[in-house]
Amino acid sequence: MTVFSQIIEGKIPSYKIAEDENYYAFLDIFPLKEGHTLVIPKKETDYIFDMESTELAGLIVFAQKIAKALGKAIECQRVAVVVLGLEVPHTHIHLVPINSENDINFKNKRLQLTADDFEATVEKIKNAM
Amino acid sequence: MTVFSQIIEGKIPSYKIAEDENYYAFLDIFPLKEGHTLVIPKKETDYIFDMESTELAGLIVFAQKIAKALGKAIECQRVAVVVLGLEVPHTHIHLVPINSENDINFKNKRLQLTADDFEATVEKIKNAM
Repeated sequence: MTVFSQIIEGKIPSYKIAEDENYYAFLDIFPLKEGHTLVIPKKETDYIFDMESTELAGLIVFAQKIAKALGKAIECQRVAVVVLGLEVPHTHIHLVPINSENDINFKNKRLQLTADDFEATVEKIKNAM
Repeated sequence: MTVFSQIIEGKIPSYKIAEDENYYAFLDIFPLKEGHTLVIPKKETDYIFDMESTELAGLIVFAQKIAKALGKAIECQRVAVVVLGLEVPHTHIHLVPINSENDINFKNKRLQLTADDFEATVEKIKNAM
């Protein structure tokens, strides 16, 4: 069971933004920018392009709802989409509120946030949904 | 009319990988890695998350076909997905064959390729479809 499946099952805590029957969204705890969110399918598939087409389509449409709320809640020019797939073997879309292309440089230092910061961000995003 | 719409209409040449009624894929002429491909909707929408959900779903499913061919044609660990949306005001998904997260650093020096190189890459990808 991947770390993300453990998050979905509540065995590992997460700052949850939203979920439905098939998908789950939560804050990245090593955020590149405030509001950096991970969107995942509940069904484990390592590589995004190995997903069934209908599941993949559902994933991006679910991510769209989250991205629209993110764009309202967090000051940014765009909500960027990044899928790398090199680390956790469970498909995850990074949604990152950005103002420049350098904001999605994964070598950037991550924000150091407290639990209160994360909870405040969750509230802002949920209120924008 | 965006530069990408001009590419779709053939007013500006491109190294086309594939197209259907609604979507178009072609090589980025400033590639981060060999096989770096742009996938776009034929209908102009500046920001990806402003697309109709069904069009967005169709875009990712079209991109999946291209990504599968890319993964076969080009030696790589994953085909990464990046959508920034800061420059050309016409939604485009970057598909980039990668071996490390640094391969999608947009500040990296771009490959200098000849027309022959690009055409050889198109052939490899088409043969893998």
